[in-house]
Amino acid sequence: MNFSEPLKLRSGGVLDSYQLAYETYGQLNESKSNAVLICHALNASHHVAGEYEGEGFKSAGWWDKMIGPGKSVDTDQFFVIGINNLGSCFGSTGPTHVNPKNQKIWGGAFPVVTVEDWVNAQQRLVYALGIERLCAVMGGSLGGMQALSWTLQYPDKVLNSVVIASAPNLNAENIAFNEVARRAIVNDPDFHEGYFYEHNVIPRRGLKIARMVGHITYLSDDVMNTKFGRTLRNDTLKYSTQDVEFQIESYLRHQGEKFSEYFDANTYLLITRALDYFDPAKEHQNSLSLAFKKIKSKFLVISFKTDWRFSPARSREIVKALIDNKIAVTYSEIDAPHGHDAFLLDDHRYLSVVESYFAEIFKNLKN
Amino acid sequence: MNFSEPLKLRSGGVLDSYQLAYETYGQLNESKSNAVLICHALNASHHVAGEYEGEGFKSAGWWDKMIGPGKSVDTDQFFVIGINNLGSCFGSTGPTHVNPKNQKIWGGAFPVVTVEDWVNAQQRLVYALGIERLCAVMGGSLGGMQALSWTLQYPDKVLNSVVIASAPNLNAENIAFNEVARRAIVNDPDFHEGYFYEHNVIPRRGLKIARMVGHITYLSDDVMNTKFGRTLRNDTLKYSTQDVEFQIESYLRHQGEKFSEYFDANTYLLITRALDYFDPAKEHQNSLSLAFKKIKSKFLVISFKTDWRFSPARSREIVKALIDNKIAVTYSEIDAPHGHDAFLLDDHRYLSVVESYFAEIFKNLKN
Repeated sequence: MNFSEPLKLRSGGVLDSYQLAYETYGQLNESKSNAVLICHALNASHHVAGEYEGEGFKSAGWWDKMIGPGKSVDTDQFFVIGINNLGSCFGSTGPTHVNPKNQKIWGGAFPVVTVEDWVNAQQRLVYALGIERLCAVMGGSLGGMQALSWTLQYPDKVLNSVVIASAPNLNAENIAFNEVARRAIVNDPDFHEGYFYEHNVIPRRGLKIARMVGHITYLSDDVMNTKFGRTLRNDTLKYSTQDVEFQIESYLRHQGEKFSEYFDANTYLLITRALDYFDPAKEHQNSLSLAFKKIKSKFLVISFKTDWRFSPARSREIVKALIDNKIAVTYSEIDAPHGHDAFLLDDHRYLSVVESYFAEIFKNLKN
Repeated sequence: MNFSEPLKLRSGGVLDSYQLAYETYGQLNESKSNAVLICHALNASHHVAGEYEGEGFKSAGWWDKMIGPGKSVDTDQFFVIGINNLGSCFGSTGPTHVNPKNQKIWGGAFPVVTVEDWVNAQQRLVYALGIERLCAVMGGSLGGMQALSWTLQYPDKVLNSVVIASAPNLNAENIAFNEVARRAIVNDPDFHEGYFYEHNVIPRRGLKIARMVGHITYLSDDVMNTKFGRTLRNDTLKYSTQDVEFQIESYLRHQGEKFSEYFDANTYLLITRALDYFDPAKEHQNSLSLAFKKIKSKFLVISFKTDWRFSPARSREIVKALIDNKIAVTYSEIDAPHGHDAFLLDDHRYLSVVESYFAEIFKNLKN
């Protein structure tokens, strides 16, 4: 969908016009009361559910286990909107697009975008779809930050917020890992200050390192030990500092390789920066309880015990600040072994908590 | 000290001749029974205690808080040896040295060295100093692995082993972080397969990333939050993906910068690989208890509660396997907030445990 009304950004910049890629699943009911917006995390897109099929390939939506007919978020009951954020490389206006002002690819000149900017853009799309109020906004990780931000920026336009494996802001360690990833990209000689498209190169080496370090933080220590441990790639050691010896090395290199083939380096910088900046308590004396005073939505907050990137303690900060403001909140801490990645995986206990919560939303829908 | 007897390496390679840099503190007693060997970790050297002084600079030994006259390891009582390992860039034969076979700088051709190789070389130096048996060998982190390996390789030549903030092997996550660091170095176009000296360049960008990612793993989450939190570098945000916004970014970049100025890239690869390979249980059906059957030394094992790199659970694996073999072991888990770095820091509880242990050793010394 194309938008021509300029979007003011937190950074002071303005996007004069932009497009937002989105997908919908299910039917909007007559009273337009059953719309659910799904916000994506770092490397995902608007392709939330269902399957793309082409010759020899299938590509399932990144939350296809969660969303679909008869699933936890039942598209026979809800009208689900998947949206791609500004700055992405999957369809919405981003660094790989042409800047209409000078007809050059944006590249390093694409403005810094924040969670708040994304939510503003999302709200315009929701409004353009004829929806006055969302019955829920939902996301995991960075997507959870957006689901939270909706209730602060548009308290009257969202009834329920589902915040999964998220945090009220990044801590120093989170920022540190993001910074390592960014420096790896920026230091790649093929980055060219973000204008690598003009040089017909891609800072692949930097992207690989960025993905490798990111990937480590998505997995729990336990799941890494169970899945890889010290298992060797070959029977005998090669005694080499550069060849693969351990399966975990092979896995990480493969993840980095794949990622560098489809993800845009500027998008990676932008999205990790949006993560860093998000901090709703900042303008409220660093008190989340004060920041949450304006919230009118109800909440479902879910965390995963082995998630050391966004630990349950961070989710409990959100829950506490909600309770301080007498806001209805259901909190569930799932004892899943998979670390941060758990929010994308097929865990029965997790999916059934979401299912129950949405069944309750459905019961209360105005039809 | 120069050695001309060839050293066979685990990899199958041989070092025909080599030198080992070392320092000593205190006096060897008449019966030569008071020698303590200190093994270093990733980026340290033989400069363990005391201070180098030059014009406008002072450089304290990396364990100067622990070792010296009247300190936990009292150099008025013990003869302490600091040694630099093979492959290092601080004096012992390593990749920056000339390969006598072809008169070229070793660079990427320097053979892979293991903890076991280091211990073999150390034993030769100890022997050359006229010492038949060490009263203790001691190290933290990778140094702890060497202290453990001594008791397996030379059970009759070491009375006590002090293993601090260490592990019986790296787990998958440890290897993963090492691999990220190595890929960052190897992918730097200035690395030239390890022969960068000939090109008059240094793979600084890779070294910086390697150090940044390493540094994150040395600190606890808590200490990062206390020390840096989300503190900004400037009062107002710049909204930039490349400028420093947060203090933690500034700190990490500074650490990376400093490191890249003094550390050798090939040494970094070699030392992280030695960490990866160390696994004494491997040849004993992956049973540490079986591997430890040959041990005759007594042990002091120390871990730090907030160390997530080599967590207390890993130290307890060592302790359990020692107890399985009825080997005398004192174990102390220090509730220090500093993460892995704690083993280098000035914590009274930690230093006093070591002090008591060495007081006991001193009491039992044959003079």
